[in-house]
Amino acid sequence: MTDTQFDVLAIGNAIVDILVYTDDRFLNTHGLIKGTMGLVDLDASCALYDKVGAALERSGGSAANTIAGVASLGGRGAFIGKVCDDQLGRVFSHDMRAIGVYFETAPTIEGAATATSIVLVTPDAERTMQTYLGACVELSPDDVSAEEISAAQVTYLEGYLWDPPAAKQAFIKAAELAHNAGREISLSLSDPFCVDRHRADFAELVDRYVDILFANEEEIMSLYQVESFDEALAAVRGRCKIAALTRNAEGCVIVSGNELCTVVAETVDEVVDTTGAGDAFAAGFLAGYTRGCDLPTSARMANIAAGEAISHLGARPEACLADMVVERMGRNLR
Amino acid sequence: MTDTQFDVLAIGNAIVDILVYTDDRFLNTHGLIKGTMGLVDLDASCALYDKVGAALERSGGSAANTIAGVASLGGRGAFIGKVCDDQLGRVFSHDMRAIGVYFETAPTIEGAATATSIVLVTPDAERTMQTYLGACVELSPDDVSAEEISAAQVTYLEGYLWDPPAAKQAFIKAAELAHNAGREISLSLSDPFCVDRHRADFAELVDRYVDILFANEEEIMSLYQVESFDEALAAVRGRCKIAALTRNAEGCVIVSGNELCTVVAETVDEVVDTTGAGDAFAAGFLAGYTRGCDLPTSARMANIAAGEAISHLGARPEACLADMVVERMGRNLR
Repeated sequence: MTDTQFDVLAIGNAIVDILVYTDDRFLNTHGLIKGTMGLVDLDASCALYDKVGAALERSGGSAANTIAGVASLGGRGAFIGKVCDDQLGRVFSHDMRAIGVYFETAPTIEGAATATSIVLVTPDAERTMQTYLGACVELSPDDVSAEEISAAQVTYLEGYLWDPPAAKQAFIKAAELAHNAGREISLSLSDPFCVDRHRADFAELVDRYVDILFANEEEIMSLYQVESFDEALAAVRGRCKIAALTRNAEGCVIVSGNELCTVVAETVDEVVDTTGAGDAFAAGFLAGYTRGCDLPTSARMANIAAGEAISHLGARPEACLADMVVERMGRNLR
Repeated sequence: MTDTQFDVLAIGNAIVDILVYTDDRFLNTHGLIKGTMGLVDLDASCALYDKVGAALERSGGSAANTIAGVASLGGRGAFIGKVCDDQLGRVFSHDMRAIGVYFETAPTIEGAATATSIVLVTPDAERTMQTYLGACVELSPDDVSAEEISAAQVTYLEGYLWDPPAAKQAFIKAAELAHNAGREISLSLSDPFCVDRHRADFAELVDRYVDILFANEEEIMSLYQVESFDEALAAVRGRCKIAALTRNAEGCVIVSGNELCTVVAETVDEVVDTTGAGDAFAAGFLAGYTRGCDLPTSARMANIAAGEAISHLGARPEACLADMVVERMGRNLR
């Protein structure tokens, strides 16, 4: 493989999170299913916002969180995603560039505002999201350049990108460009309901393009419509180079050819908010993988990053993940 | 005193905080004086923002934080302050109303954006602020109504309001309306540099209008240009009904007529960020005072609120202060 400018280039929805504590009763009253991400239009988003408590704003977006994690692990990251040139768009852009991530996607100048996701955190630390895609629907194949994609060892795509229609084409274009350049493609299935919405497409994507697949237990079972994790494991085996499957507190299972590696989750003092756990897991794994680490090492890094993400409110790392890896694994990533 | 609709009405700059961790070197490189609030124009604010790390956005503003604390203590609060009808203005407005604070000041429709303050938090938990006043400069006497002021037992004014020129007039109007209605006026001196900018005006305000004065050691010494806290205490005595003076970890001293009451600070497990400590202190004191608590009780509530504020990033309460008061003082505020 020739030298690359980026370890990971992530493509995803560019979202600012509106984080708010709530309770189960509120979720029930508003017909929200705990742990899932639902899409809402502007009116529904505003109506929900009017009903929630005082909030905290913080850049989010699934693949964007992943690239923030890669950067915190000392990886060289790039991001493609669409914001509007408004206050929250400038917040999102700042937070990408401030951590050293290359982010040059042109913002929209008018039309829908920058995407926001109302993230409802319940006392059990679960998060339930209601996302208004806003400017994200304007992401198009024109935003994906061959130069950027071929400069990245791995291009990482979030499944949520399948929701805004034009982004799908950007997604496919990126996958083809990456493979043409001899690079790899990684996909996160994002959310069980997202898998429900796009099951046939996702199954085809995995077979055609995906080198490294990320999914949690529920998502991979939903993708292959099977009843147990073992059946899902059997179903995904051989379909992509690596499948990295997470099982919450039980840790993760990595499948690659005939190799199967199980790594237990890290101990976390207090689980505060699970927002971004899967995003951070992918960050840790990809940061290890792109540095040539073996599967168990990459998986351990993934678990460390996920453990950090769930120990505070919000999805992006608060601690320096590279320092955490040094501390826990005695491995210098600098 | 006749019945009131509000315990406290606060008038202040309506600001969204951009909270970011940094270090002493960054402050020195940019000529920033630790622990102070500096005013910057839009260009300087943007230039600084470009240089800081990934941030977190959260509603702030000194008097606005105080009224959020009053609400968290079960008090009935109102706020007057100026935002623009933009994304951050809507964030600020939402966060006021979501905690039950009456906030009906008309936003501006065009012109300067909603005010932001870049809050730089150093490892010693000190905060240094650079504030762009934005739409706050549009606050005018027209935004202050006799009906609202006379509906509040105490009208609380932040010293920072003396910075935007038109807000001064709103400040004076509010003070006169309150006294005409037989209500009380409270003032926070806000910041030693703010006292430097407006020393003569503040001294006159205290003598003419202020019933309850809040200041920290440095501010009250600056106001009366004396070299010791004891001299400042002697200087302020008799000039207002109550002077509530804070001394960081040493707690507070309350002066009222011949009464002098000293209350030690609450124990805090870990001081994370001192942003909003003074605002929270005023909240606790006013919540107690307006409920008819004696000075030592009100001061203890003030210290509990301040202790909560410094235990996390950001100025507004994260825990329910009323519950904390019940727990620590066995006092039911509901």
